[in-house]
Amino acid sequence: MIPRYSRPEMVAVWSAETRFRIWFEIEAHATTALAELGVVPKEAAEVIWEKGSKATFDVERIDEIERTTKHDVIAFLTHLSEIVGPEARFVHQGMTSSDVLDTTLAVQLTRAADILLADIDALLAALKRRAFEHKATITIGRSHGIHAEPTTFGVKLAEAYAEFSRNRTRLEAARADIATCAISGAIGTFANIDPYVEEYVAQKLGLSVEPVSTQVIPRDRHAMFFATLGVIASSIERVATEIRHLQRTEVLEAEEYFSPGQKGSSAMPHKRNPVLTENLTGLARLVRGMVTPALENVALWHERDISHSSVERMIGPDATVTLDFALARLTGVIDKLLVYPENMQRNLDLLGGLHNSQRVLLALTQAGLSREASYAVVQRNAMKVWEMRGDRTGVFARNLKDDPEVILSDAEIDAMFDDAYHLKHVETIFRRVFGSAS
Amino acid sequence: MIPRYSRPEMVAVWSAETRFRIWFEIEAHATTALAELGVVPKEAAEVIWEKGSKATFDVERIDEIERTTKHDVIAFLTHLSEIVGPEARFVHQGMTSSDVLDTTLAVQLTRAADILLADIDALLAALKRRAFEHKATITIGRSHGIHAEPTTFGVKLAEAYAEFSRNRTRLEAARADIATCAISGAIGTFANIDPYVEEYVAQKLGLSVEPVSTQVIPRDRHAMFFATLGVIASSIERVATEIRHLQRTEVLEAEEYFSPGQKGSSAMPHKRNPVLTENLTGLARLVRGMVTPALENVALWHERDISHSSVERMIGPDATVTLDFALARLTGVIDKLLVYPENMQRNLDLLGGLHNSQRVLLALTQAGLSREASYAVVQRNAMKVWEMRGDRTGVFARNLKDDPEVILSDAEIDAMFDDAYHLKHVETIFRRVFGSAS
Amino acid sequence: MIPRYSRPEMVAVWSAETRFRIWFEIEAHATTALAELGVVPKEAAEVIWEKGSKATFDVERIDEIERTTKHDVIAFLTHLSEIVGPEARFVHQGMTSSDVLDTTLAVQLTRAADILLADIDALLAALKRRAFEHKATITIGRSHGIHAEPTTFGVKLAEAYAEFSRNRTRLEAARADIATCAISGAIGTFANIDPYVEEYVAQKLGLSVEPVSTQVIPRDRHAMFFATLGVIASSIERVATEIRHLQRTEVLEAEEYFSPGQKGSSAMPHKRNPVLTENLTGLARLVRGMVTPALENVALWHERDISHSSVERMIGPDATVTLDFALARLTGVIDKLLVYPENMQRNLDLLGGLHNSQRVLLALTQAGLSREASYAVVQRNAMKVWEMRGDRTGVFARNLKDDPEVILSDAEIDAMFDDAYHLKHVETIFRRVFGSAS
Amino acid sequence: MIPRYSRPEMVAVWSAETRFRIWFEIEAHATTALAELGVVPKEAAEVIWEKGSKATFDVERIDEIERTTKHDVIAFLTHLSEIVGPEARFVHQGMTSSDVLDTTLAVQLTRAADILLADIDALLAALKRRAFEHKATITIGRSHGIHAEPTTFGVKLAEAYAEFSRNRTRLEAARADIATCAISGAIGTFANIDPYVEEYVAQKLGLSVEPVSTQVIPRDRHAMFFATLGVIASSIERVATEIRHLQRTEVLEAEEYFSPGQKGSSAMPHKRNPVLTENLTGLARLVRGMVTPALENVALWHERDISHSSVERMIGPDATVTLDFALARLTGVIDKLLVYPENMQRNLDLLGGLHNSQRVLLALTQAGLSREASYAVVQRNAMKVWEMRGDRTGVFARNLKDDPEVILSDAEIDAMFDDAYHLKHVETIFRRVFGSAS
Repeated sequence: MIPRYSRPEMVAVWSAETRFRIWFEIEAHATTALAELGVVPKEAAEVIWEKGSKATFDVERIDEIERTTKHDVIAFLTHLSEIVGPEARFVHQGMTSSDVLDTTLAVQLTRAADILLADIDALLAALKRRAFEHKATITIGRSHGIHAEPTTFGVKLAEAYAEFSRNRTRLEAARADIATCAISGAIGTFANIDPYVEEYVAQKLGLSVEPVSTQVIPRDRHAMFFATLGVIASSIERVATEIRHLQRTEVLEAEEYFSPGQKGSSAMPHKRNPVLTENLTGLARLVRGMVTPALENVALWHERDISHSSVERMIGPDATVTLDFALARLTGVIDKLLVYPENMQRNLDLLGGLHNSQRVLLALTQAGLSREASYAVVQRNAMKVWEMRGDRTGVFARNLKDDPEVILSDAEIDAMFDDAYHLKHVETIFRRVFGSAS
Repeated sequence: MIPRYSRPEMVAVWSAETRFRIWFEIEAHATTALAELGVVPKEAAEVIWEKGSKATFDVERIDEIERTTKHDVIAFLTHLSEIVGPEARFVHQGMTSSDVLDTTLAVQLTRAADILLADIDALLAALKRRAFEHKATITIGRSHGIHAEPTTFGVKLAEAYAEFSRNRTRLEAARADIATCAISGAIGTFANIDPYVEEYVAQKLGLSVEPVSTQVIPRDRHAMFFATLGVIASSIERVATEIRHLQRTEVLEAEEYFSPGQKGSSAMPHKRNPVLTENLTGLARLVRGMVTPALENVALWHERDISHSSVERMIGPDATVTLDFALARLTGVIDKLLVYPENMQRNLDLLGGLHNSQRVLLALTQAGLSREASYAVVQRNAMKVWEMRGDRTGVFARNLKDDPEVILSDAEIDAMFDDAYHLKHVETIFRRVFGSAS
Repeated sequence: MIPRYSRPEMVAVWSAETRFRIWFEIEAHATTALAELGVVPKEAAEVIWEKGSKATFDVERIDEIERTTKHDVIAFLTHLSEIVGPEARFVHQGMTSSDVLDTTLAVQLTRAADILLADIDALLAALKRRAFEHKATITIGRSHGIHAEPTTFGVKLAEAYAEFSRNRTRLEAARADIATCAISGAIGTFANIDPYVEEYVAQKLGLSVEPVSTQVIPRDRHAMFFATLGVIASSIERVATEIRHLQRTEVLEAEEYFSPGQKGSSAMPHKRNPVLTENLTGLARLVRGMVTPALENVALWHERDISHSSVERMIGPDATVTLDFALARLTGVIDKLLVYPENMQRNLDLLGGLHNSQRVLLALTQAGLSREASYAVVQRNAMKVWEMRGDRTGVFARNLKDDPEVILSDAEIDAMFDDAYHLKHVETIFRRVFGSAS
Repeated sequence: MIPRYSRPEMVAVWSAETRFRIWFEIEAHATTALAELGVVPKEAAEVIWEKGSKATFDVERIDEIERTTKHDVIAFLTHLSEIVGPEARFVHQGMTSSDVLDTTLAVQLTRAADILLADIDALLAALKRRAFEHKATITIGRSHGIHAEPTTFGVKLAEAYAEFSRNRTRLEAARADIATCAISGAIGTFANIDPYVEEYVAQKLGLSVEPVSTQVIPRDRHAMFFATLGVIASSIERVATEIRHLQRTEVLEAEEYFSPGQKGSSAMPHKRNPVLTENLTGLARLVRGMVTPALENVALWHERDISHSSVERMIGPDATVTLDFALARLTGVIDKLLVYPENMQRNLDLLGGLHNSQRVLLALTQAGLSREASYAVVQRNAMKVWEMRGDRTGVFARNLKDDPEVILSDAEIDAMFDDAYHLKHVETIFRRVFGSAS
C-alpha cells in the first residue's frame, strides 16, 4: 500500500483511528450485553459508552504502552482505562484479544468489500455504456493474435461485463464468508462469556455469528476472501492486456486517453504509451501474490497461533487498497478510452477477406466435398494470400474462383464476403449478457 | 498425478477414452441439433450416433494422425470420419475445436467436482461421528502451542466439520462456475452455428449456457475453481497439522492408526510416525501450487490464445486427483484415529490448573481490583508455577491463597479449579455446528 | 509430467528402474565402505555387488511388499535380500532410508541439471547463430508496444542469449547446491555409521559431502534449485512472448515454422498461429507454480518430517521434464523461425520517421532551446503525425521544417532521418555479449 | 512495509530523498562523462554538480509537477532545472528515464543486499556462539515429531548455521546479479549516448556494466534476487518453527525470552507464548509471496513495458525491509533464547531408552539374525513400551532381556543404553560446519 496506488476511502478503513474506534465499539457493545446479563453494572456500561464515544484514542500513547506490554489490545485497554476511569475494569470481561481483533478484521474486510462492490458497479456501468456505444462497431476477432473472424467492439466489452458480473457474485460470497463475529473467549469455549454477548455484538455490527471459533475466526474464510480478490485482479489484467494490444502501433484500434501536458517518454517526444493498463497488469500481479500467503495462513496450530497476524497486517490493507485503486483506474480507462473504428475496419480488411475461410469450407462440405478435402482446398488458397505482400483486396475470392476444385459459383463465392453475416447474433449475445439488447 | 496419490474413479475422468467419448457426444448432440434446424440431414445425425456409439476410439490412431495435423481435435475428427464414413462431413459444422475442448473440460471438471463433493460428504460423516464420540472428552486447548484453557476433543472435530461444511458450499459454487457449455463457433459469434445448438447440447450435458464466449469459455471460471481447491487443500493441511501435533511423543493425545506389519522407520524399529498427515501436508502444498498458474491463465490474449491449455492438461487432472486422494486419506485418518483421553487428561493436569488463571483474574476484577492490578497479581503467581520443575499439582491454588493481594477466600479459589466450568457451552457449539447437540 | 510435454532422456532419470538402480548403488557402495572399516565382511560386500549388479529389480514385487510394510525403502531392502540372500543383512547397516532417498534425489537432480545445461547450450547455439544472421536486420524497437527507436533483430536475439547465459550460470550454482551426499544415519549423528562411509559414497557418486544433515539433506538446497528453474521458465516465457507479438497479423515480422500438413484451426483454414510459443507460455506458468511448494518444503519439523516427499515426487519429475521439453521446444522455434525483414522495414516506416523524435529533441537543446521547450515543440509536431491517417512518409520532417520554433535548417532536419545512426553501436553490443562481433 | 516490521536503515534506502539523490548522482555523473566526450560543456557539468549537491530536492514539488506530466523522471528533471538553471538542458542528454530508474534500483537493491548480508553475519555469529555453548547439550532428535535418537542442541544450531552460510553465498550471487548499470538510451542501442557514459557511471557507482539492455535492465536479474530472498525467508521459517516446537508446553526445551512487564494474553495471565517466532513464520509467508510477482515480471513485452514498475515499487521495499526485520528479529531470538537442558534430559528419558532400538537391531544382525527377523523382534519389544502408561525407565531393556529371541547377553543389552554413544561424531560435524570444533 503506497500513496501512488491508493484511494483515501479505502485507506481510511485501515487507519489506526478506524481500528481503535471499532475496537472500542466491540468492547462497549459487549459490555452492554454483559450488563443486560447482569455480569457487570449497567451504569458502568453507560459510562464506558459516554466517555469512549467522546474520546479520541491517542495512537501514540497506545504505541508507547505497547512497547512495555508487547501486546496491542492490552495497550489499548490500558489507554481506555485512562479515559474511562475505574469502570474500565468491566471492559473485556471474559474476552480475549482475538475476539476484538478478529471481529474488527471482519468489520474492516466487510467495509472494504462494500467499497470494492461499488467499484465493480462503477466498472460495470462504464463497460455497459461503452458496450452499447460500440455494439455494432465491427472489428476483427483474433485468436492467437492472428485474425480469425469479425466480431464487434461492443461484444468484447460485453464479455468483460459478463466477467465482472461473475466477479461481483463471487465477491458477495466472499464478503459473506468473512462477515462473521466471534466473541467466544479463550479457546472459543464461552467459558467466561455467555454466547448471548456474541449474538448481541454480531447483530449490532451487522455480522453473522461464527458457529464455532477456536479463539480465532477460522482462516479458511480469509483465504477464500483473498483468493477471490486474486481472481478479480486477474480479470483486470485480462481487460488491461486487451487494451495494451489494441493500442500497439501497428494495431491502434483503441488508445488510453492522453491528457494535455502528458509526456509519454522522457527521451522520445513522439510516444503515447498504454501506461495505465501496463500499470494495471503489474497491480494484478501484486494482488495475486497475496493469495498464497492467505492460503498458508489457514493451517494455524491447534486452537490458534499468531502467524496469520503479520500476514494480514500487510495483505489486509495492501490487497484491498490495491484492488480498489486498480478497479477505479480501469473504470477510468474504459470511460475515456479512445476508440478508432476506422482503424478497426482497416485492420479487418488487411487479409482481403481471409476471415471468411470457414464459410467457404462449410459451403464446400454442404456442396458435397469431404471435410478433409474442403479444408485442403481452402487452406491452399488462403495460404497464397497469407504469404503475399502488398494489397490483398479481393485476392482470396479470386483465388477461389480460379480453383477448379472449388465447386461453388462465382456468385456463391462473392456472397461469402459479406461481413454482416458474422454479426447476426450480436443481439442474442447482448440480450444474454445485459438482459436486453438495447 | 502419480499412481501413489491417485484413486481410480477420478483418474478415469481424465483418461483419453473418457475424453474422446465426451468429444463424440458433444459432436453428435450438436449434429442432432443441426439436423433439427435443417442444416444437416437427419439421417446423417442418426448414422453418426449409431456408428460412433458402438465404436471404440483408437487412442493410438488419433495420436498418429495428430503427429501430422498437429491439432488434436482435427485428428479426432479425421478418425471419426474413418469410423462413420461420408456422413462425417456433417460433423463439427460451424464449430471450432474450442467448442469441443472447453465444453469437455466443463464436463470433466463437473464430474470431478461431484466426486470431490462426495469425498467431502464422507469426510463430514467421519468428522461428525468422531465429534459426537468425543463431545465430552476433555482436553487442553492450546494457543501458540501453549496450554490455554480446556475444551473437548469433540469441539476440535466440530470446528473441522464446520470448516469442511463451508468448503462444501464453496465447491458447489465453484462447480456451478465451471459447469457451462459453449458451442458458439469461431470468436464466439455464432456466425456459422445457431445458438440453438449450444442450448441443446448444454441441456443434454446438464450444463448451463455460457452467456458470451470468445471462442473459449472465459478462464476466470476455472481460476475460481482451482482457487477453491486451493482453499480446501489448506483446510486439509490444518486438520493434518493438528493430528501431527497431537501425535508428538511428548503429547500423544491421538495417533494415526498403525497397521500390523507396518514399519515406521527402516533404521529405528521403535517408531510410529504420523506419516499420513505429513503426506497430506505435502499434498496440500501441491494443490495450492496450482492456484497461481490457474490465475495466470485468465488474461488470455484477445479472443483467445492457447497458453491455458498446457496448464490445464496438467493441473486439471493433478489438482482434482490429488485433492480426491487427500480427502479420502484424511477421511481414513479421522475414521481410524486412535484417541487417548487419559493422555489428554494427563497433559491437561501438567501445569497444575494454571489454565484457570483467567477465572481468577475475572473474580478479582469483580471483587473490586482494577484489571491491571488483577492481571499483575495472577501473572506473578502463575509464573512461579511456570518456572518450577516437578509435580505442579495444587501449587497454583496454594500460591493464590498465600498471596495477600488475592482478595478471595480459599473456598472461592478452590471453586475455580473445576474443569466442567469450561465445557458448559459445548452443547451450544454442537447445536450451532450440527443443528442439534445429540 | 505428461507424455505430450516430455522427452525420453529426462523421463528416464525419474523411472522406477533408475531409482532402484541408484538405491542399489548407494547401498552397495556403503557396504563396501563398511567392509573397508571392518564393520561387515568383505565377502558380503562382494556378493552384494555381484548379485545386485546382475539383477533386474522387480518394480511390481517391490510395490507388493510395500503394501504391507508401508515403507518403500524397507520394501526394496526386502526384495534385495530375496536377490542377494543371507549377505543382505549387511546392507543398510546404520543407515536410514533418508540416506538412500535423499542421496538418490541428489543424483537424479544432478543428472536432470546436466540435461538442462545441455538444453541451454543448444538454445544458446541457436540464439547465437540467428543473432549473427540478423545482426544488421533493422527493426523497430518497441517500448510499451509502441514504436520507439530502431534496433536490429540480431540485438533482440543477443539479449536472449545474454539472458540464457546468466541462466546457465545460475543453473550451475543450483546444481552444485543439490549435488550433495548424506549417509549420516538417523538424525544425522553418524551414531551407527562412520562418516567415512559418507565420504566414500559421495566420492563414488560425484557428489560433495553434506556438512551437517539431520537425517535429511536440508531443503533450502532444493528450494534454491526449483526457484532457479522458475527463473529459467520465466525467461522462456519472455522469448516466447516476443515471438507471439512478432507473429501477430498486423506485425508479422517473424513466424513459427508451419509444417506441410499442419492445420492452424479446425474451423478456419486460413490460420497460422504461434501455438508453440503460446504453449511455452503455459509451460512457464507450470514450472513457476512449483517454486512455492518447494519453498514451503524448507521448514520441516525438527530433524525431519516427510511432508516434502509427496511434493518432490511430483515436482521433481514435473519441473525438470517440463523445463527440458520447453527448452528444447524453444530451441526448435528459434532454429526454424521464419524472419521477415521486409515486414520489419515496412513496420519501421509506418510512422514516417517519428522514431527520430529524440534526435530532433537533442539537436534543439544543443542549438540552445531548453529541454522543456524542445520537448514541447517536437511533441507537438509528432502528435500531428500520430493522429493522421494514411501514408505518413515524410510528414514529420515536413512538419518540423514548417515550424518556426524548430531552429534547425532543412538539411539538419533531413540528416536526422538516417536510420543507420541508430545501429552504430550494434558491434559494441555483440562484442560484449558474444566476446566478439563476428 | 509497515513501521511495526521495519528498521530505519533499510527504510532509508527506499525513501524519496534517497531515490532523488541517486537520480541526481546518475544524471550528474553522466553529464560529467558527456562533458569528457565533448558532448556538453565542461562548465555545465560543474554547475550541475555544484548546485545539485547543495540542493535539497523538494519531494512535494516533484509530486506536483508529476500530476501534470504523469511521468516521474520528467517531473524530477523539471525540478532539477528549477534548481540548476539553464545548464540543466545538458542533463539527461540521450538518456531515457529507464537509464535512471533501473540503475537507481540497482543501487538501492545493492545497498539493501549489503544490509541483509550484514544481518546474516550477525545471525551467523549468534548461531555460532549458542552452538558452541550447547555443543554437548544432549537432546532427543525427532523425526516426524516422534523421538528418534539423541543429538545435541548445538548440532541443531550448527545446522542452522550451515543453512544461513549457504544463504549468504546465495545472496552474494543475487547481489552480483542485480548490481548492474544501464545507461544505454532508448531501446538500449546507445544511439544518442556513447557507451563510455555507461562505463563511467557504472564505475562511479560500483556497479558492473549491463552487457545488453533493451532500455531496461532485464528482469531475470531481479527475479533471481527476489527468489533468493524467498529462500532465505523459508530458512527463517525453519528455525522459527523449531523454536515454536521446543517451546510447546509439553516439550519446553527452549523458550523465547519473556521480558519483565510483557503480557502473553489479554485474557490468560499465565501465558508465555512464542510470539516472535510465530511472527517470523508469517513474515516468511509475506516475503515468499513476493517471489511469484517478481517471476511474472520477467516477460516484459518487446524491448520493455512498465508493468514491472508497480510490482517493484511495492516488493522492492517490502521484501527487503521485511526480510531485514525478520533476520534481525531472529538474531535477537537466538541471542536471548532460554535453553532448558534439564527438560531436554527429561524428555529424552521419556520412552525409557527406546531411542536405542537401532543399536539393538544392528547388534542382532551382527549376531547373525536376518535384518527382517531382527526388526520384528525389536519392534515387538519396543511397541510394548510405546503403548504402556507411566514410568518407562528400564522397561525396554528388561523386555529385551526377557525375550528369548534376543540373542544378546544382558551385559551387551545394558551397554546399548549409553547415550554418549550417539554423540561421538559431534566434533566431526562441528569441524565440518565451523572449520574447527572449538
